Amino acid sequence: MTDFAATKARFHLPEGLIYLDGNSLGPLPLDAPAKMDAVMRAEWGEMLITGWNRAGWMDRPQSIGDRIGRLIGAEPGHVVMGDTLSIKVYQALAAALEMRPDRRVVLSDTGNFPSDLYMAEGLLGMLGEGYELRVVAPEEVADHITEEVAVTLITEVDYRTGRLHDMRALTKKAHSVGALTVWDLAHTAGATEVDVSGCGADFAVGCTYKYLNGGPGAPAFIYVAPRHADRARPALSGWLGHAAPFEFEQSYRPAPGIERMRVGTPPILALAALEAALDVWEMTDMAAVRAKSLELTALFIEEVEARCPELVLATPRAPAERGSQVSFRFHEGFAAMQALIARGVIGDFRAPDIMRFGFTPLFIDEGDVVRAAEIMGEVFGERLWDDAAYRKRGRVT
Amino acid sequence: MTDFAATKARFHLPEGLIYLDGNSLGPLPLDAPAKMDAVMRAEWGEMLITGWNRAGWMDRPQSIGDRIGRLIGAEPGHVVMGDTLSIKVYQALAAALEMRPDRRVVLSDTGNFPSDLYMAEGLLGMLGEGYELRVVAPEEVADHITEEVAVTLITEVDYRTGRLHDMRALTKKAHSVGALTVWDLAHTAGATEVDVSGCGADFAVGCTYKYLNGGPGAPAFIYVAPRHADRARPALSGWLGHAAPFEFEQSYRPAPGIERMRVGTPPILALAALEAALDVWEMTDMAAVRAKSLELTALFIEEVEARCPELVLATPRAPAERGSQVSFRFHEGFAAMQALIARGVIGDFRAPDIMRFGFTPLFIDEGDVVRAAEIMGEVFGERLWDDAAYRKRGRVT
Repeated sequence: MTDFAATKARFHLPEGLIYLDGNSLGPLPLDAPAKMDAVMRAEWGEMLITGWNRAGWMDRPQSIGDRIGRLIGAEPGHVVMGDTLSIKVYQALAAALEMRPDRRVVLSDTGNFPSDLYMAEGLLGMLGEGYELRVVAPEEVADHITEEVAVTLITEVDYRTGRLHDMRALTKKAHSVGALTVWDLAHTAGATEVDVSGCGADFAVGCTYKYLNGGPGAPAFIYVAPRHADRARPALSGWLGHAAPFEFEQSYRPAPGIERMRVGTPPILALAALEAALDVWEMTDMAAVRAKSLELTALFIEEVEARCPELVLATPRAPAERGSQVSFRFHEGFAAMQALIARGVIGDFRAPDIMRFGFTPLFIDEGDVVRAAEIMGEVFGERLWDDAAYRKRGRVT
Repeated sequence: MTDFAATKARFHLPEGLIYLDGNSLGPLPLDAPAKMDAVMRAEWGEMLITGWNRAGWMDRPQSIGDRIGRLIGAEPGHVVMGDTLSIKVYQALAAALEMRPDRRVVLSDTGNFPSDLYMAEGLLGMLGEGYELRVVAPEEVADHITEEVAVTLITEVDYRTGRLHDMRALTKKAHSVGALTVWDLAHTAGATEVDVSGCGADFAVGCTYKYLNGGPGAPAFIYVAPRHADRARPALSGWLGHAAPFEFEQSYRPAPGIERMRVGTPPILALAALEAALDVWEMTDMAAVRAKSLELTALFIEEVEARCPELVLATPRAPAERGSQVSFRFHEGFAAMQALIARGVIGDFRAPDIMRFGFTPLFIDEGDVVRAAEIMGEVFGERLWDDAAYRKRGRVT
């Protein structure tokens, strides 16, 4: 039984804000500044270069990877940290494609985050003629998993609608036709009960600045199934993925297992903040978080629909089909979101018309949900977004 | 006239250590913890997602890139931060190769850092048949720049010997046969007077945790010459290199100029430490640093050779031919370096027999150099490394 009041107390949440954007950037864990300061002063400052051994920096990508592995159902020793999610998408997709040399189609969907599609485009462009990135509607993915498909590249939750793909069913379907799967967990790691091992996922990648609260630009992770870990060829073959990096050999030899997915020098400072964020996760488990998340999203849908009839729910009503966000379509969504933000309800807007709200049980409770819905009711009741101040278009909201 | 005593006072240098490994990991700038704390609490903590605009996070990769650009002779607006050096090598090399579609040879040398060679190997492996990574001796690079060569991939300073390539001459030679150049500035940014613009370099990349003192795993940078910046195709085509990332379009369109070399979400916390480190660079200029560096390396060579006749200088004696490190060959170099480290002189060892010492005028002065040489004289006079304690092989030194 998780004490979510206790997890909430572990974050800095500015007075007067209801922060429903933890699905985009999680808030500051209260212990993170002190942890960072200790790594900077006691490790970097005092140990200098010897920190790589004495402070264990060199092993941190794996030890932290294992902590995330526990949240996504990975086998120990099969997750490693580093780079950004876009880079990890590229690595996973390149490795998977190389394992299906006779096929040329990467299957994805329009609900995938654009960066995944862009990275795939860049990769396929380099691989030469004949490769195809086939992008279908989210609901049609299963029907398009055919024997032409080398790899499916799917973000488990649609960043706009919050619709959750069925990882187990799609992975099974992919394997039944000889395809491999790359799962992007950006919106599910720390949000739903992910089970990469149980679902038989081949590769999985994710970021840590959303539900995991690692801070702006926190490092990404990659999972490679144990059955592939010693075979997957890292296209991004950097020295820290070498079997013997400190031998400084002239040719690349991949390290055994997941370690080969490391590339360059690990971001030790960024990892320090992430470690403090992961400490909060020790107070709970994903089953409890998922149960609470579904309560919060159901409550929000109910409370908002009662107050704002102009909004059209974009997120599936069936709990099993949604992640941990609720999205509404509204043609003046950008301006309306500005008005909400000005009144302390922080969600975000995704073109063309999605108002998006993330629910993160570690620090959002029923009181926040009801209060946010009340404020939405006021904003919509008075059409506050008609005020010109809310109509100017910003870059990130 | 730089006051190097004042720059030295801006770093935390542990009592009793002479740190001659700033060429591997620079020391902690005293202002870095406070800067980091401010970014964590006042920006991440208070602004949350709005920090991307309000705190200027989104533009930081360019604004910091420009600060580094000034140290390497880049035109303003043509350097951007992100990822690791290995990733930036891959990006630059892929873009350069795509601009020479009729050629198949990448020329590098045995003094290049292995990760550059490994990344090239991975890239060429993906591009398919016919590509060749040709690796020659450092002294033979010029002779091997032929019309077969698509791109030269050269680290300006040899990480083992400290030998400095002639960027101007090699770039000119490359251009004379229609080849492009990718320069790795890992050991020259902040160490020598680099002039990427004046030398006509096509691409340059570098890390910031060595001479620039950005911290363990600090982000890398990439420079693309203005004449290529709007043509270079980013193989790693992530959403923050898109012309309109927040339109969330389904297909990739590269941003104008250097911005296209951005990939994923920038590492805001790591960049905070780097900013504090770059503040120290405002107190000097590269001409002063280079002059002082050459004084320090000349003094060290002289003082050590007078005391340790067993050591064989691996670094060129001619000032114009060396970077900011001094290396000696010694068959028991690993054990001898352990003995030195135990006595407070921190250098490092590179297989098979290189004892390496970095000289960083921002925090190393003549007194340090003489004292380090005296301690080396004692260690070699008494053969202290014969003690078994120094003979065990560590992972990083």
